[in-house]
Amino acid sequence: MGRAEFLPRNESGIAATIAALKARFGDRVSQAQALREQHGHTTTWVGNQPPDAVLYPESTEEVSEIVRICAANRTPIVPFGSGSSLEGQLNAPAGGVSLDMTRMNRIVEVHAEDLDCVVQPGVNRKQLNEHLRDLGLFFPIDPGAEATLGGMASTRASGTNAVRYGTMKDNVLNLTVVMADGSVMKTANRAKKTSAGYDLTRLMIGAEGTLGIITELTLKLQGIPQAVSSAFCSFPSVPEACNAVIATIQYGIPVARIELMDELQVKATNAFAKLDLPETPALLLEFHGTPEGVKEQAENFGEIAGEFGGSGFQWFTREEDRARMWQARHDAYWAAKGLRPGVDVISTDVCVPISRLADCVAETQADLAELGILAPIVGHVGDGNFHLSVLVDTKDAKELESAETLMSRLAKRAIAMDGTCTGEHGIGQGKMAYLEHELGHAVDVMRTIKRALDPLNIMNPGKIMRT
Amino acid sequence: MGRAEFLPRNESGIAATIAALKARFGDRVSQAQALREQHGHTTTWVGNQPPDAVLYPESTEEVSEIVRICAANRTPIVPFGSGSSLEGQLNAPAGGVSLDMTRMNRIVEVHAEDLDCVVQPGVNRKQLNEHLRDLGLFFPIDPGAEATLGGMASTRASGTNAVRYGTMKDNVLNLTVVMADGSVMKTANRAKKTSAGYDLTRLMIGAEGTLGIITELTLKLQGIPQAVSSAFCSFPSVPEACNAVIATIQYGIPVARIELMDELQVKATNAFAKLDLPETPALLLEFHGTPEGVKEQAENFGEIAGEFGGSGFQWFTREEDRARMWQARHDAYWAAKGLRPGVDVISTDVCVPISRLADCVAETQADLAELGILAPIVGHVGDGNFHLSVLVDTKDAKELESAETLMSRLAKRAIAMDGTCTGEHGIGQGKMAYLEHELGHAVDVMRTIKRALDPLNIMNPGKIMRT
Repeated sequence: MGRAEFLPRNESGIAATIAALKARFGDRVSQAQALREQHGHTTTWVGNQPPDAVLYPESTEEVSEIVRICAANRTPIVPFGSGSSLEGQLNAPAGGVSLDMTRMNRIVEVHAEDLDCVVQPGVNRKQLNEHLRDLGLFFPIDPGAEATLGGMASTRASGTNAVRYGTMKDNVLNLTVVMADGSVMKTANRAKKTSAGYDLTRLMIGAEGTLGIITELTLKLQGIPQAVSSAFCSFPSVPEACNAVIATIQYGIPVARIELMDELQVKATNAFAKLDLPETPALLLEFHGTPEGVKEQAENFGEIAGEFGGSGFQWFTREEDRARMWQARHDAYWAAKGLRPGVDVISTDVCVPISRLADCVAETQADLAELGILAPIVGHVGDGNFHLSVLVDTKDAKELESAETLMSRLAKRAIAMDGTCTGEHGIGQGKMAYLEHELGHAVDVMRTIKRALDPLNIMNPGKIMRT
Repeated sequence: MGRAEFLPRNESGIAATIAALKARFGDRVSQAQALREQHGHTTTWVGNQPPDAVLYPESTEEVSEIVRICAANRTPIVPFGSGSSLEGQLNAPAGGVSLDMTRMNRIVEVHAEDLDCVVQPGVNRKQLNEHLRDLGLFFPIDPGAEATLGGMASTRASGTNAVRYGTMKDNVLNLTVVMADGSVMKTANRAKKTSAGYDLTRLMIGAEGTLGIITELTLKLQGIPQAVSSAFCSFPSVPEACNAVIATIQYGIPVARIELMDELQVKATNAFAKLDLPETPALLLEFHGTPEGVKEQAENFGEIAGEFGGSGFQWFTREEDRARMWQARHDAYWAAKGLRPGVDVISTDVCVPISRLADCVAETQADLAELGILAPIVGHVGDGNFHLSVLVDTKDAKELESAETLMSRLAKRAIAMDGTCTGEHGIGQGKMAYLEHELGHAVDVMRTIKRALDPLNIMNPGKIMRT
């Protein structure tokens, strides 16, 4: 396991908080060891720091009440969705209470005419899309995991569809947020655009629960496209695949998804999903539009791919075939794990300007060879964003050190290319040092905002930046 | 002229600042009366509150130096672009210095491969698009006025293209900002997406210069579409035109522009631009895409329009014809002025969920009739956003009161429909009271952020909210 710094604990305050919460919420407060560990650890490689208790609120009013109790006793609060964050966002380095939002899972309103809906934070993406299907609508952000929408907003999630539909920052109209003093604010109304004051919606999106707890979201929706077509296409090398992506974006083809798998990932996926894909770098694509439009996009992409050595096209237009292809992509993490059973997978990501993508991937592959690390690469390459599944025996200090060298070089390389140390996984505990390296004085400004809005430092402390 | 509250002046501090600035910048500091008035007043209906001096910085370092001088003497600073804001954003209610950014008008870098560019804040939209044309690129946000990009970011501008390309919040990758203590921060890098900490880019966009001064912007660019087609189409009534818009958006036609003119606006435009359009409500549209795609979009729209009584289609595919049509739209303000020469035009806007658009416009037209006010309506109706050009003799107290009644009802109506009191003009001085009405406690949160980042209250004080 990776290292995670512990912070000073306010023992008496935490004890007083738990007593008060038990008196008020009874059985909904749990201190069971396994539950606490699950709420701290999740899918991150950062060492486990469990909260002292887990509590399941059922309304904004209850969250407000809980925050007031925690504030009165200076007790940390860590909001929890489905536990799929990757950088230690859910750990409790100073102890405190994990607020599990999964009982707040009601789809409150769907405004089909306005292409928006109001949901509680514990609703997950799949649940929402099943609810919307009969209305001909969908919510496009798909981070792969069955994340909750509150968690997705808090970490500014994106995923495979972001190249066309944007990230969470582009798909939320307003948020209801319980602030550090227990007060409740609504950041905006349902208008599609607004110039009414500071953009508090976007400030809360990606704040990883350090500024407040999201208790309701209004989301933008999309009409389900009339036609959808997916494709798999092989390339002789990663740079050629990347250059095909660059040309596609520059040409203005509105691809809905354009995903890279390197050779190692294709091998892993073949083994895991019992497929027979050619074991070379590959792109997985999806086109959305009218039947005519999809046909035109696919033809234009086919020409571009041909120029960069793309071959072996497989097209999937039936929904079940498309679903199988994307499932294979979403299972990349598990497929990677199968390459070296028994070790851990550290999932890390960076994002660079697309002109630097091929270089960034190639230099990283050279690092992997030099350091002797197995780490398949997948990527939302239309945005210049890619991921490594680093296979590492974290109990072996030397291996862990090599992995840390790799990740440090990767983050710094992306920053040097005018990109970011994280395109979609967030900062959490794992990338705090890189954030300082990336943004310098802007982190001081974040700290000033954090101190102003959370003067007691109780909202998910020890994340994003040192306060 | 409308009322504008004055704030207490720090006379000795202002005098010390001006002396220090003159010693350092010489002739670049001006106190000429006409220049000061121009820098305060611009196109707003709010009464003029000129700054004490106007200064033309030439670099980020100079802006930083100026802010340090102002901070040392607690002197207000009002950043100025082209002076096209509409809600009193440029007034100096406590006096101080107007920072005219128009000498910082360099296009610093264009990264054609990455579809982005770096510009100084004084670059205007037209200048940028002329520079980009030969590269086959353009910057899509078009607020009508020849605004500077710094001003457009500061006011979260949008305009006719926003229905397809979003607003300034969607088209800026990062900002360099001089903060209230003179420190300089860069909010992000050039990656297309990032989850690296708080979204300071979006916090600064729309802050109207109250949190810092933008001195550099990295903007997303678009490829110039292969095919563009514009259309003019008449409707029997405003509700029918609105319903055609709603159906178009719901159907998912990716219109690049879809603009409403009510009957009065068409009349005004005929007179001003010497045209012969049918004097009924009308929609003006534009489609961007491949030749096939544009054709398909136009056909699909034609069918929808037909269902709502749309008729008299005129299509414009030649660039000069399209330019003439959109010029007529952009001149709506001047055309409106011609309906009642000699009086003032108060331009106001609201934005509502699109399902409420037809009701909101109809109820507003009923108000106009009741109050006896002439006010043509135009709107970026694909976003649910519309504008009134209120023709009013502001020297006549009774007329001004009627106009204020109209605007108050309009803002409150939009808010009651779960919309906003301003879709794109911002809050400035003119809409501070409505902002409180619209967002309640969120305005307290804005105030907390303002105080934390600008403890001396020198950055464009008296705007957005009372501090």
